[in-house]
Parts: sequence; structure tokens; C-alpha cells
Amino acid sequence: MIYLDNAASTPVHEKVIEEMIPYFREQYGNPSSIHRHGRLANAAIQNSRKRIASLINANSNEILITSGGTESNNTAIYGIVSQSKGKHIITSAIEHDAILEPCKRLEKEGCRISFLPVDKHGFVNPEDLRKEISNDTCLITIMYANNEVGTIQSIKKMVQIAREKNIIFHTDAIQAVGKIPIDVKDLGVDLLSISSHKINGPKGVGALYIKNGVTISPLILGGGQENGLRSGTENVASIIGFGMACELAKNNMNENTDYLKKLTTKLTIRVLHEIPATTLNGHPDMRTPNNTHFTFLGVNGEDLIIKLDENKISASTGSACSVKIQKASHVLKAMGFSHEQVTGSLRLTVGITNTEQEIDQTVDVLKNVVQELRAVSPYKSKYNF
Amino acid sequence: MIYLDNAASTPVHEKVIEEMIPYFREQYGNPSSIHRHGRLANAAIQNSRKRIASLINANSNEILITSGGTESNNTAIYGIVSQSKGKHIITSAIEHDAILEPCKRLEKEGCRISFLPVDKHGFVNPEDLRKEISNDTCLITIMYANNEVGTIQSIKKMVQIAREKNIIFHTDAIQAVGKIPIDVKDLGVDLLSISSHKINGPKGVGALYIKNGVTISPLILGGGQENGLRSGTENVASIIGFGMACELAKNNMNENTDYLKKLTTKLTIRVLHEIPATTLNGHPDMRTPNNTHFTFLGVNGEDLIIKLDENKISASTGSACSVKIQKASHVLKAMGFSHEQVTGSLRLTVGITNTEQEIDQTVDVLKNVVQELRAVSPYKSKYNF
Repeated sequence: MIYLDNAASTPVHEKVIEEMIPYFREQYGNPSSIHRHGRLANAAIQNSRKRIASLINANSNEILITSGGTESNNTAIYGIVSQSKGKHIITSAIEHDAILEPCKRLEKEGCRISFLPVDKHGFVNPEDLRKEISNDTCLITIMYANNEVGTIQSIKKMVQIAREKNIIFHTDAIQAVGKIPIDVKDLGVDLLSISSHKINGPKGVGALYIKNGVTISPLILGGGQENGLRSGTENVASIIGFGMACELAKNNMNENTDYLKKLTTKLTIRVLHEIPATTLNGHPDMRTPNNTHFTFLGVNGEDLIIKLDENKISASTGSACSVKIQKASHVLKAMGFSHEQVTGSLRLTVGITNTEQEIDQTVDVLKNVVQELRAVSPYKSKYNF
Repeated sequence: MIYLDNAASTPVHEKVIEEMIPYFREQYGNPSSIHRHGRLANAAIQNSRKRIASLINANSNEILITSGGTESNNTAIYGIVSQSKGKHIITSAIEHDAILEPCKRLEKEGCRISFLPVDKHGFVNPEDLRKEISNDTCLITIMYANNEVGTIQSIKKMVQIAREKNIIFHTDAIQAVGKIPIDVKDLGVDLLSISSHKINGPKGVGALYIKNGVTISPLILGGGQENGLRSGTENVASIIGFGMACELAKNNMNENTDYLKKLTTKLTIRVLHEIPATTLNGHPDMRTPNNTHFTFLGVNGEDLIIKLDENKISASTGSACSVKIQKASHVLKAMGFSHEQVTGSLRLTVGITNTEQEIDQTVDVLKNVVQELRAVSPYKSKYNF
């Protein structure tokens, strides 16, 4: 089995698993309890919070632990909008559904939402943001790196624009954190979402960075955990695992980035050289090191995934979260792709556990299956494949 | 170390850990992905959903998986109230904060909330519920078993009253599920909350039973997982663990209940016989088999916990979720307890991993520390200890 869908989820690092297990077996206390079992669990969480904070150069007390990236995004949006007088949100057309859907619900409830356009590389022009700001704008939320095509935005520039107008800036950095250096102090963002399972940590846990001084309303109420901002017994073992994943990501950042780039570069060069009528999508330079996203003209991406799957290769057309409903990618449409380009797309995202040999094997298979599919393509005559 | 705070959290069963580990290491796919890795993860979740459903005699498609009991309770309340015309909620005075806090927020937003009183045993009179129902009532939420004193309510009777008026009935059954037989079809409830970590499953996962035909609005939006009712990548390993914990709880229900009762009976008899001026709180018969809750007159419960902790025994005064803020128990106050009775209280909750020897050892220690504390008690002269 070759797994090339690391943007959807990643294997949990062996050191992360090791670190988690004692918190199932022995350190099972409720962190809110005042006895020894509780204190040990609580101390472990605070240690983990430091590790999470450290990965993005935040302070420990700026890290709100959640059940994952989606909850982080929902918390950021509702948490700001529910307490703001202004009811205008600016976001982009290529956000993840965990941003778009909360925005659409707020639109129904009377908010005004601006969806900034992107260029053919999936890039938001910061000047478009400047023009869209109104007196009523309470929140800007623009993703750091796109989950489908990997394009990295000019977040720092956009934060500066937001600063001038004193507007809260949130970024969904789920695909970027742990893969490229992120420094919240340098960026100046107010809120930033992270997910554990995209960086070889366990699923079901994530964080929202909340800059000191920024206040939000909680989404989930109860026992008052996480300083009252996220109630519910803390998911101790997963939080410990998440912390370890952050520490590993930080310590191995340069080495991992180089390795991921090496794999994606090899993959890209071979695919573009050996398979005709193929393009690499997303920004040519400003992209996450683990992402490749291709269009094979005349081919249906879904068929391609099934063929790859038959050959024991796991790939994706786009966001895992929406493939089941088979809707055409809103990201690619916003980038101006034609229907044929959208349907002919394939995302291959590498991880630290992939090997060069797997990349070579994948390209060999890909060449064959693209050829097979093109031989029966309705576009066959158009391209003389 | 003797752990007698199983109502706060429980050790994860060895079989549960075994079942979870492959989902960190090998089956790490995103359940929304259409490739083999994704399909395996998805199939495992559906299997787990069956196990969860089976514990409460629900259908698989009636189980919404959440990040835990608190989220289940929040989802039930917001999920019903946000789509209802009526804005009156009936609950009880002794609910967990995960019910009370969402209700209090809704009260600020214009809802009317009735908090039903309880008798000295913490028991809600179903006739009080009947009287409180108005044309505007959209939701009744009454806990199945109390987390502090263990009292079990007449949920079936109250559901019948709700049925007559066609009002949605939710029960927070977090302290009851897995410890006593619960059959949602027999009960007739519309919504029921469950938590994994109270039944030897992992933390960070829970479920909300939603009876077929009942519709709710989601709390967290995004990729549309869980039939659009709870977005976010599924917490696969924890869901698998939760499923296994449910299966174990179901298969061993009679045996476990008998064992827990044996331990709590021994504990209760010895404490009441050997320590003077002591009462067992909560209902004498209708209580969860794992719960004991005592008042030692003339003693401060916090001091007692610290003394027990010094003797390597983990105990609690009440809900783990609120002990840190040291507020007096709203449950005991609602039961009519005096300040002295409230502060003199101790909760000892047993689990399947406790032994009879641990119970004996605990009573031996308890006798000594209660005596020590009473020797310096401001109430000393009052009782002639």
C-alpha cells in the first residue's frame, strides 16, 4: 500500500503513540480533579500546551485546545461574530468547508459575507482585501495554505491591512502548521487554527491560537475547562500525543521540509515530463512542500483514484471532507478551471513516511492508468493521445 | 494508589487500548476518503456505531458521535432550541454544568428556563414536571442519574408526561449508561447523551442518541460528517475504543453491576457503622451501583480529600468539572443540605478495577482521617466526637 493522501490525514508517529499509551492505562485521571491522578493529568496537559505553543512561537496561555481543526475554525468565527457589533465577514472563495459553512449559516442569520476571489494559482490579492473592508467588518478569515492545491497566501501582508483598520484576523493554518515555519508573533494574526492529525498526531484534537488580549465567546459550555472557553473533560491522551507531534514537527522542521520537497519535486518532474497534456496546479513556488495537484486532461479524476486504488495507491481528488458527496471542487472553480480541468484533477500529498521508491512506483502506475483512461476518453479525438 | 473517583473518569480497558492502537499505526485513513485507507476507517466507524447503539438498544443511524458528553449535551440543547418556536426549557436544579450553562446562556438570549426542584434524596417529582409545562415549552432535559449523589430519576414517567404534550425530551445519561441497563425504545426519550470515558473507554468521544424522526441543528459545521450533524474528521481510534467499551459494558453488565454493588455496599455498611455522625446521601435505593456519597459532620470535605490523597487514595467532593473553582455543590444545596452538610461531603465512586481489599483499606484510612479532622473541628463541642 502506498499512501499519498497526507493532506487528508497522516499516520501517527511511533513516538506519539508511545507518549499517549500511559494516559490510557495509568494516568487516566480527570484533569479537573484535585487528587494526584487529576493533578498528573493536568500537569501533562499544561506541558503539552507548551509544546503546541512552541511550534508557532505562541505563549502557552494563548493556546485553546479543541476537538480538531473544524471546531477551531467554528470557534474562531462564532466566537468573534457573536460578540461583535459589526456583522460583515471577509473570507476567500477557496476556504475549507469548516470556514465556508459557518459563514453561510451566519449569512442566513443576517451577516454579510464577502468571498474574495483568487487568481489562477489560487492566490488572494491583498489589495482585494483592502477594498472589501467596510465599517461593519468584524472578522477577516483567510486560510494560510490551501488544502487542495497547496497555495500559500500572503497572510502577513493581509494582517497588516487588517491592523490598519483594527479588524480581527483569523487564519486556518491547518495545512501549513508543522510543514513550514509559522511564527504567530511575526505574522501578527489574532487567531490561528491547527489540527493534530495533519502532522502525525492523533485525530480528534486541535488548537486555536488566541492572541493575548483578544476575547472570544465559547461554543461549548459546561464545566468551564480551558478557562471557560471550551468545556468538556480534556481529551488527555490525545492532547499529549498532539503535543509530542508538535515537538517532533518543530525539531525536525528543516529536515522534514527538505525531504517532502525532494519527494514532491521528483513526483512533479516525472509526472510533467512523462505524462503528456498534464499541468501542475496551484502556485508554482508559494506552496506547501508536501502538496502536488495535477490535471490530466481527458481523464476523470474519480476514475483515476479508483484505478490507483486497484493498484494499492491511495490518492484524492481534493478535500477528503467533501469527496463523498462528489461535488465539483469550489477551489478549482474559483481558480477559473474549466469543467474538464476540474474533473481531470488529482491530489497527491506526501508525508514523512513515504519513500522515493514509492514515488517512482506511483508515477509508473500513473503513466499506465492515465493512458488506459485516455484510450477510452470522450476527449480522445480532441487531444490525439 | 487507590482510585475511587470513577464518576470523574475511568481507566481505559486493556481490550479497548488493544482495539485502538491499529487505528493510530496502520488504519490512519480519513474516513471521508474514497480510497482503501479511507474505506477501512469508515467501515470501522460504522461497526463501532453499531456497538454504541446496541448498548442502549438504539438503531445505528440514531447515534451521532461527538467529542464527548459535554458536546452531546450542548448539541441536544442548541440543536432543538435553535429550531423551535417555543422558547421555554424545563430542566432540573441538579443537572451537570454541561446542561445548566447552555441553559443559562439561552436564558440571557431570551429563553425562559424552569429549574425543577428535588427532594432531600435528589429526586425530581414527575408531577412537578407536569405542572411546569407551558404552551411555549420546546425542550425538557432531565438527567438520568446524578453525577454527585447517584440518584436515578423516573425518566420513563417523565417521558410519558412529555409525550402527552408532544415535547422533545432529552436526558443526560452519562452517569447511567454502561452501569445500569438502558433501553431507549422502552424509555421513549428523543435524545440521550453518552460519554466514553465514564465506561472505561477513551476520553474525547461521546454520543448523542437522536430518535429517528427527531431533527436537530448542528453545532459544528464544515465537511458534513455525521450526516451533516457534526463536522470534523472523525476521531477514528477513539470511536473504535468507545465502541469496544460499549460492547464490554453490554456483555458484562450484570456481572459488573453486581460487583460494583458489592463494593459500594461494603463501603457504605462499613462507613456508616464505623464512623459516627455520618450519612449516606442520595436516594437509598434508586442510585447508580458505583456511587457512594457521604456527609461526615464536622469535617471539611476538601481537607478530607487532601488527607486521603496523602494516603494515596483519590476521591472527590463532587463533580470533577467544578471542584477547581471550589464552589459549593448546587446539587446538595438543591437537596436542602445545610452549609455544614455540604462542606462535609465526600464522593467515593468505584469501578471495575477496584478490589474489596482497596475498599477495606480506604475505610481504615477514612476512619483515622475523619477522627483527626474532627479533633480540630470548629464543630467539636457540638457533637462530642
